[in-house]
Amino acid sequence: MPDHVFPVRVYWEDTDASGIVYHASYLRFAERARTEMLREAGVEQWRMRETDGVSFAVARLEIDYRAPARLDDCLEVRSRIGEIGGASLTMEQDILRGAAGLAQLRLRLACVGRDGRPARLPVGLRAAFGTPAG
Amino acid sequence: MPDHVFPVRVYWEDTDASGIVYHASYLRFAERARTEMLREAGVEQWRMRETDGVSFAVARLEIDYRAPARLDDCLEVRSRIGEIGGASLTMEQDILRGAAGLAQLRLRLACVGRDGRPARLPVGLRAAFGTPAG
Amino acid sequence: MPDHVFPVRVYWEDTDASGIVYHASYLRFAERARTEMLREAGVEQWRMRETDGVSFAVARLEIDYRAPARLDDCLEVRSRIGEIGGASLTMEQDILRGAAGLAQLRLRLACVGRDGRPARLPVGLRAAFGTPAG
Amino acid sequence: MPDHVFPVRVYWEDTDASGIVYHASYLRFAERARTEMLREAGVEQWRMRETDGVSFAVARLEIDYRAPARLDDCLEVRSRIGEIGGASLTMEQDILRGAAGLAQLRLRLACVGRDGRPARLPVGLRAAFGTPAG
Repeated sequence: MPDHVFPVRVYWEDTDASGIVYHASYLRFAERARTEMLREAGVEQWRMRETDGVSFAVARLEIDYRAPARLDDCLEVRSRIGEIGGASLTMEQDILRGAAGLAQLRLRLACVGRDGRPARLPVGLRAAFGTPAG
Repeated sequence: MPDHVFPVRVYWEDTDASGIVYHASYLRFAERARTEMLREAGVEQWRMRETDGVSFAVARLEIDYRAPARLDDCLEVRSRIGEIGGASLTMEQDILRGAAGLAQLRLRLACVGRDGRPARLPVGLRAAFGTPAG
Repeated sequence: MPDHVFPVRVYWEDTDASGIVYHASYLRFAERARTEMLREAGVEQWRMRETDGVSFAVARLEIDYRAPARLDDCLEVRSRIGEIGGASLTMEQDILRGAAGLAQLRLRLACVGRDGRPARLPVGLRAAFGTPAG
Repeated sequence: MPDHVFPVRVYWEDTDASGIVYHASYLRFAERARTEMLREAGVEQWRMRETDGVSFAVARLEIDYRAPARLDDCLEVRSRIGEIGGASLTMEQDILRGAAGLAQLRLRLACVGRDGRPARLPVGLRAAFGTPAG
C-alpha cells in the first residue's frame, strides 16, 4: 500500500519567536494527516466515538527533528501503517519539504473505550489497512 | 469589588515568527484568568458542566492590541465583571506588563445548556459576583 | 471584488473538552485565510518582512460567535477588505458551515516596521486591493 | 541534584473534544518546565539568543502516555538533566497528577547557532547542571 500523502501549509500560528516551526506543531500536522488517512479509509472519528464508543489515543510517540520548517513552507506528511494488533496499531510518518525530510515520527495508537480501557479496533479499519497474513 | 489579578508568563508556545506573542494567545491568557476568577468564587467549570449541564460560551469578544508582549515577559490579567443578566454576563479584562496596558478585552459570556440553548447562570455565580441593586 | 473564500477542516487540535471548537481557534482560521488572500494578491508575508521590514499586526478585532463548529466540520472563511488607509486597513471575515454563519469578525490590521511603529502599506497590496475612488 | 518541579494547571485550551488533554499539549507543558529550570539556573533563553546567538532546539523526543489528564487538573512536571555533551544534552521529564504518572518524556536538546548549526552549550549552563567528573 502506498504512503498516504497530506499537504500542510505553515502559518504564523505554527511558528515561534525563534523564527521556525514550534516543535509541538509537527504533532498537530501529523495528527491531521492521520485523521485524513482514516477518513479516506471510511473511518470518521467523531462518528466512531459516538456510535461505537471508541477513540484512538496516542500511547507512545517518538519524533526525530532533522531540519526546521519555516513560515509559508508547503510541507507534506507521508504516513504508513506498521503493525495492526487487536487493540492498537503502529504508524510511521515523515514530514518533508520537497525531498528534504524535516521530521520523522513513529507512533503507537491505542483504541480505547469510553472508560479509557483498551478496545478492539473497528472492523472497517482492519479491513481497510490490514495486510493479509502470508 | 477589586479586579481579579492573574499572572501569566510568556513561553515559546505563545509567540510567533514575528518575534512577539501571537494575537490569539491573548485570548488563551484571558480565558485562564476567567477560569481562575470563577474557581476562586467557587465555580469549577467541569463540575458545573457535569452536575448542572451548563457551560460558559464566549458570545462576543472585542480586543484592542496596544503593544506587543514578548518571550519571557511576566504579564498580569486584570478581570472584572460588568453586567450580570439572566443567562449572560459581560466582562472586561486588561493584559498588562507592569504599568503598560498591552491588550484590552470586552466580552459577553453566555451560559448554555447541553443543547446549546441559553441557560440561567448558576446561583453561586450570581451570589459571588452580583452587585446588590440600589 | 468578490469575497476571498478559504476552506478549513476542523481537527482535534481545534476543539476543547466542551466538545466544540475552542473560541480562540476561529482567530487561527481567520488568520490562515488572510494569509492566503494576501498570497493570492502577490504578498508573501515573510518576504515582505525580510525585504521591506514591515509586517501586519492585528490592532483591533471583534468577533461574534453565533453557533459552534465541531470536529470534522468543513468550514469556509469568507474575507473582504473594508477601508484601506495609509498604514492600516479593515477587514471583515465570516466563518460558515454551508449556509450557516458560525462567527463573524471585523478587524483592523496595522502595517508596522521593525521598530513596531506604523509603516506605509506595501504598494503591491494597495494595487491589488485598493478600490478606485468614485 | 533533585528533580526540578513545575506546576501546571489544565485549562480549556489544553483539552480536545475527546474530553481529555490533547496529546501535543504535554509537549507545551514540558517546554514550560524546561524554560523555568533553565531560568532558575540563570539561563534566560531570549537573552542567550540575542547575546550569544544560540538557542536550544529539540532534536529528538520520546513520550509515553500512560493516563489522561483532564480539565482543571493540577499537574506537576518533574525534570532532570541526563548527559551533558559538547553541543547537546539529554533530559527526562515526568508529568504527574499526585502520585500518578501520566506521561514520561525523554529528550535530546541541541544547542544551535543562528545558522542552525551545532553550537557549544553556554558555559553557565554547564556550570549549573554539569556533574563533576568522578
